[in-house]
Amino acid sequence: MEVTRTLAKFLVNHRYADVPAKVRHEAARSFLNWVGCAVGASRHETVENALAALSEFSGPREATVLGRGDKLDIMLAALMNGTTSHTFDFDDTHLKTVIHPSGPVASALLALSERKRLNGKDFLHAFILGVEAECRIGNAVYPSHYDVGWHITATAGVFGAAAAAGRVLGLSEQQMVWALGIAATQSSGVREMFGTMCKPFHPGNAARNGLMAALLASKNFTSAEQGIEGRRGFANVLATARNYGEITEKLGETWEISLNTYKPFACGIVEHPAIDGCIQLRNEHKLKGDEIEAITLRSHPLVLELTGKKTPQTGLEGKFSVYHSSAVAVIYGAAGEEEYSDAVVRDRKVIALRDKVTATVDKAMHEDQVHVTIKLNSGKTLEKYVEHCVGSLGRPMSDADLEAKFRAFCPGILSKGEADKLIRLCWDIGKLDDAAKVARASVPAPKAKGKTKPKARKK
Amino acid sequence: MEVTRTLAKFLVNHRYADVPAKVRHEAARSFLNWVGCAVGASRHETVENALAALSEFSGPREATVLGRGDKLDIMLAALMNGTTSHTFDFDDTHLKTVIHPSGPVASALLALSERKRLNGKDFLHAFILGVEAECRIGNAVYPSHYDVGWHITATAGVFGAAAAAGRVLGLSEQQMVWALGIAATQSSGVREMFGTMCKPFHPGNAARNGLMAALLASKNFTSAEQGIEGRRGFANVLATARNYGEITEKLGETWEISLNTYKPFACGIVEHPAIDGCIQLRNEHKLKGDEIEAITLRSHPLVLELTGKKTPQTGLEGKFSVYHSSAVAVIYGAAGEEEYSDAVVRDRKVIALRDKVTATVDKAMHEDQVHVTIKLNSGKTLEKYVEHCVGSLGRPMSDADLEAKFRAFCPGILSKGEADKLIRLCWDIGKLDDAAKVARASVPAPKAKGKTKPKARKK
Repeated sequence: MEVTRTLAKFLVNHRYADVPAKVRHEAARSFLNWVGCAVGASRHETVENALAALSEFSGPREATVLGRGDKLDIMLAALMNGTTSHTFDFDDTHLKTVIHPSGPVASALLALSERKRLNGKDFLHAFILGVEAECRIGNAVYPSHYDVGWHITATAGVFGAAAAAGRVLGLSEQQMVWALGIAATQSSGVREMFGTMCKPFHPGNAARNGLMAALLASKNFTSAEQGIEGRRGFANVLATARNYGEITEKLGETWEISLNTYKPFACGIVEHPAIDGCIQLRNEHKLKGDEIEAITLRSHPLVLELTGKKTPQTGLEGKFSVYHSSAVAVIYGAAGEEEYSDAVVRDRKVIALRDKVTATVDKAMHEDQVHVTIKLNSGKTLEKYVEHCVGSLGRPMSDADLEAKFRAFCPGILSKGEADKLIRLCWDIGKLDDAAKVARASVPAPKAKGKTKPKARKK
Repeated sequence: MEVTRTLAKFLVNHRYADVPAKVRHEAARSFLNWVGCAVGASRHETVENALAALSEFSGPREATVLGRGDKLDIMLAALMNGTTSHTFDFDDTHLKTVIHPSGPVASALLALSERKRLNGKDFLHAFILGVEAECRIGNAVYPSHYDVGWHITATAGVFGAAAAAGRVLGLSEQQMVWALGIAATQSSGVREMFGTMCKPFHPGNAARNGLMAALLASKNFTSAEQGIEGRRGFANVLATARNYGEITEKLGETWEISLNTYKPFACGIVEHPAIDGCIQLRNEHKLKGDEIEAITLRSHPLVLELTGKKTPQTGLEGKFSVYHSSAVAVIYGAAGEEEYSDAVVRDRKVIALRDKVTATVDKAMHEDQVHVTIKLNSGKTLEKYVEHCVGSLGRPMSDADLEAKFRAFCPGILSKGEADKLIRLCWDIGKLDDAAKVARASVPAPKAKGKTKPKARKK
């Protein structure tokens, strides 16, 4: 069976007109969510350190680091945007494989669009195709590949970036075979890195390397013909089981991006039902933290296994505490990046409520479900059963939810007007005459740049 | 056991004075051989295509592509030199692991020396330490890692490049731990790529990525603490068996570069005894091809398994034909890159003699051995038993052999005077006030550049 070639053929020959409207809209939603995440983390220490190390080696500064004034060559910009978009671990999730699909693909593509003029249609099409390649390759080796210890967003992401970039570079079928092969031989990224700066580095590096693979292939730099399925190729070397039908069957009939989901909350997905339930009760009953005597959760066992930290000390630890998450959900009605700051985790009011949360395991519960009981000081008891958590495929975030999530990233980075404009461009991505407008619109006006261009402010 | 940290501690604290003189000399031999290989392939299609794809994205053009006029940023130059040095598959071999050790390490280091002034002592020391890290990590996972399908020169090479670059960047112990971790999570390169441009790309990419790992770590970009030995780290994810003692024991007492070998012939190592035997008989008896009736080889079984191609059609196929190799050995007394050109493979005289070669298997033979019988038209029979092939650890190439090999790479690229100067600098690498002199001396004078600067010639 010709796996790599079959996929390459599809990638170079598919027509945009054959992408259903619903799929296009899901792609725009994914793209909006990705831009927001990248802008949101654009001042994080992770990207500051990476820029300090690598910016001086940049080639032609054609591409934008989203949310910043910095420009870098397209491969370095792809690296940085892939990194920022995953820094908060708040980006999209292809639940079948736990791939975060947009990072590697959009980062490569948007950087390339600032060098090579791309209309929005071609951009969106290449984005959809890149995600398709990436997630199908992931499907073919999941879960054995992930279980071995590979960070699948990185290892599958490099194919997605190569596919998308290769498509807009106009590769021939043979060149696309090579691009996928050059991607295969760069596939890397291990789960040992979770909890360090290398985790967000992974999708960035996948974007950089996938883009390079496409550029090399465009000049007839050769690779093996069977980079994916060959005896010593990706699927045999990096996984213990594989199903190539996941790559070759129903191409153009099913779309992996339709299975994409978006996190409403800035923490591990297992805590989301509890947060969802608490926010619903809060809003329905206009609850305040100090009128509560006890909060009791009945959840899937993984919740306590992964997020059972009773007394978190830092913002990062707060993300692994269902107690903290439930408390901020009631007090703030939100669990965004801000609710996981060190200050909020150490806030007396938050700690007081957190200590009133009890979490119990109910093996009958699905990961998507929770039962929340809130007992008030008044003696009254409120209950909420969440069957499908917000953000799941069963109850996806609405377009308005996604916009609100985006806006929450912007304070201190973009003005309201700038955010409005950027959000509009993201929704309209498929209609733009020039996709690079999105990158340009992500840069705050000089007066807001502050730290990045201090000299400009003195004038 | 702290594997990554133990290695990092050694790498940052070791003193050059504690490197035995014999080890330093072996390092200079390795370096000379590496420079020759890189210069030799500097006009190959592989590097031409890579340059066509990537040169325009170069940052500050501080570093030299050996043997060419081109300058690139240090990471791209490391990529190109690692690639050219492995293009002919004629570089050094650490036989215990089949790692080609110099490519990833020297490529990163020499590029860096053109940006950051490095005296020869520090250069040679970092080179020795980089090879040590790379080969010890290779020893720890060989052979299971290679058997899975990894190209170990790439996967271990990225650690060597990070270690060497990290040493000259003056990383702290903690930063070196991070550098090794960032290397671990970029470790990639599959054997499916053998026979394509991606094979030589592997050590180049390892050099580029290892150098980037060290640069990132120097700005406190964090990675896991146990990049090598962690549950989801390099050795557990990329190998099915591992022995950490190979990394942590006798550090500073044994030196892997002492086990380095150099190929005298431009083809797979299993054919080397046959070539050696044929050249010895030719020289001892002043043989000519047309006085020979038959050549019979008795060899280790791998010879026919790997190089049993009876009627090669191209130069590349000739490398996999012990018949062709024996024929050119008798006719030309050599088996360099030139003897594997398409023209030589198709030469009638060569074909006539090739057809008179018979190869038989003798399971009692070691890989290093051969028995050659040459029957002349006159009826006379000549015999040669090779116990240790030239280039093996048992009968290493002499310094003069290495110089002759180097010179054979230069025609059409460097003049005799230029080659003399470059060879002298390589031997003296440990004494130079500025290691970058080697890179600069590898560039031919303008009049010899020919193709690379056609405009300059018109003046």
